[in-house]
Amino acid sequence: MKTFHIQKPDKSIVPALQDKIDNLTKPKGSLGRLEELAVQIGTIQQSLSPVLRMPQNIVFAADHGIVKEGVSFSAPEVTAQQIYNFLKGGAGINLFARQHRFILKVVDCGVNADFGQLPGLIDRKIRKSTSNYLHEPAMTREEMERAIEIGAEMVQWAYQEGTNIISFGELGMANTSASSIWMSYFTGIPLKECVGAGSGLDNQGILHKYDVLSRAMSHYSGDHSVEDILRWFGGFEMVAAVGGMLQAAELGMTIIIDGFIMTNCILAASKLYPDVLEYCIFGHQGDEAGHKLVLDALNARPLLHLSLRLGEGTGAICAYPIIESAVRMINEMNSFKEASVTKYF
Amino acid sequence: MKTFHIQKPDKSIVPALQDKIDNLTKPKGSLGRLEELAVQIGTIQQSLSPVLRMPQNIVFAADHGIVKEGVSFSAPEVTAQQIYNFLKGGAGINLFARQHRFILKVVDCGVNADFGQLPGLIDRKIRKSTSNYLHEPAMTREEMERAIEIGAEMVQWAYQEGTNIISFGELGMANTSASSIWMSYFTGIPLKECVGAGSGLDNQGILHKYDVLSRAMSHYSGDHSVEDILRWFGGFEMVAAVGGMLQAAELGMTIIIDGFIMTNCILAASKLYPDVLEYCIFGHQGDEAGHKLVLDALNARPLLHLSLRLGEGTGAICAYPIIESAVRMINEMNSFKEASVTKYF
Repeated sequence: MKTFHIQKPDKSIVPALQDKIDNLTKPKGSLGRLEELAVQIGTIQQSLSPVLRMPQNIVFAADHGIVKEGVSFSAPEVTAQQIYNFLKGGAGINLFARQHRFILKVVDCGVNADFGQLPGLIDRKIRKSTSNYLHEPAMTREEMERAIEIGAEMVQWAYQEGTNIISFGELGMANTSASSIWMSYFTGIPLKECVGAGSGLDNQGILHKYDVLSRAMSHYSGDHSVEDILRWFGGFEMVAAVGGMLQAAELGMTIIIDGFIMTNCILAASKLYPDVLEYCIFGHQGDEAGHKLVLDALNARPLLHLSLRLGEGTGAICAYPIIESAVRMINEMNSFKEASVTKYF
Repeated sequence: MKTFHIQKPDKSIVPALQDKIDNLTKPKGSLGRLEELAVQIGTIQQSLSPVLRMPQNIVFAADHGIVKEGVSFSAPEVTAQQIYNFLKGGAGINLFARQHRFILKVVDCGVNADFGQLPGLIDRKIRKSTSNYLHEPAMTREEMERAIEIGAEMVQWAYQEGTNIISFGELGMANTSASSIWMSYFTGIPLKECVGAGSGLDNQGILHKYDVLSRAMSHYSGDHSVEDILRWFGGFEMVAAVGGMLQAAELGMTIIIDGFIMTNCILAASKLYPDVLEYCIFGHQGDEAGHKLVLDALNARPLLHLSLRLGEGTGAICAYPIIESAVRMINEMNSFKEASVTKYF
């Protein structure tokens, strides 16, 4: 598999960042989480005056073979239909991207449809849907490596466009199922606590989903390596996101993590390269059962709690203005000296 | 005192708003708090396509006589110094206002300084600082009525500028003290649970503050009416905010509530006109002891929890992009029918 070179950001700049923040015209610590964000981004960028350039959200889309087992509330054709909706600009992610001036890219990694030449859609289809992991691995080792490379390629492209802050979203009916299995494997939390309603299952539906996923896990006969868990249960869109996150960290970008599925992708990425977490800001904690647990396992404290569960990157983009506020604070706010204000402490 | 005509928004539009939201291309309910905000603003504006126009933050500034008793961590001259900082554009509130394109007004209601003619400062000084309510009422009945009118005047001005969403901020050393007393009177919560660190007191400082405020409350000899509590302990900037909030509700504006002090101002306003709360969105829950308790007393669930405690309206303005997202959702997102997507439910 592609090797990434991810460095832990040099923390020796932290005291200088903290000193700059403590001298801004406000009571010490009074901008709370914004101050923490400014320290983190300043450390990632190794700068006392960090900047955010060309924020970008990359949506990876693919279908899942497991959908045949009735684990998803949404009809399988919705993946393809929503692609058209994205390209017309009428989906949730479009309006948030417009609002916060994100570049939005939509990448077909394995949607079960023939789109032909579709302006605006980036065609990197690996195969029309993964295989049904109740019976066989979702993808081959080669397909998994291909998905990682697609993610990395998209981030290299974004980097060349000047982007230094990036989020990832997903579209794929049944992808909370794969996420729950990854979560259970990588955290050790029992599957039951990792399974939730997804796009709208009732209690009976959740029990059926749990039963299917539980059987799938018990049939697993791989080598238990991280890579093998990724390929056995993963979606193409999820593995691509893992590759994208690792590439973004290698390039020193700040990564905004979206909801339940993207949280499990960064969890998987961190099992390969733990230092990737240094580059992450968690955008949103949603209502999907298990999301809080996996965030706790990662020691992550998301910025927002708005009960979103739409995916697509929406929870990440909605958190962006707060991150921008933090960067504006450290760059635009006067120091006590500049403002001739008696220091508050 | 000035009379306000505040109507409860007509709720008969709610089913039509909910139906519109449920037909947008997303799983039902999957945009969580954004959906609730869209229903609230649509109801306030009596429109299925609400709009946000010319958001505005009005900062009222004044000094407090009680500051002589050592209840504030910040030096008393900071109120006046920060006015200059606001006008130079280098304070916290300036950058958030620039970021989210808020009109920012700064109103001197009673700062203990001579500013002369200062471009950008709106001079409505009632008196240089309130009196020390440890010994006498903070202001006269006439001064209280004048402060209410100043707040109302500023909001009428904003309305004429086209503003239909507004927030209020404050600047005034020692104004968490007055807020804690109002909170205790208007909620019945013991003063001890209402008193906190303000801009940075340590435990000993908090105990001293509690002791001073406790003695001030025990000396109270007024008529226990809401108006009398306002004038006895209030700051000019706080009473002006109460007037502004009531005027904004009368004019059908959406009001974004900032932190601890503004939460106690809307608490006071709601004791005069309970329906004012229908127009309020709570922006932020901060770390000041008592803030969560007063929010609970108001059944308020703030949008953000970022540990801000700067005041000035910062917590309200930082919440604005989320409110804007909600309005964009109901206006810009495609319906299932428009997008030819199989309905998710």
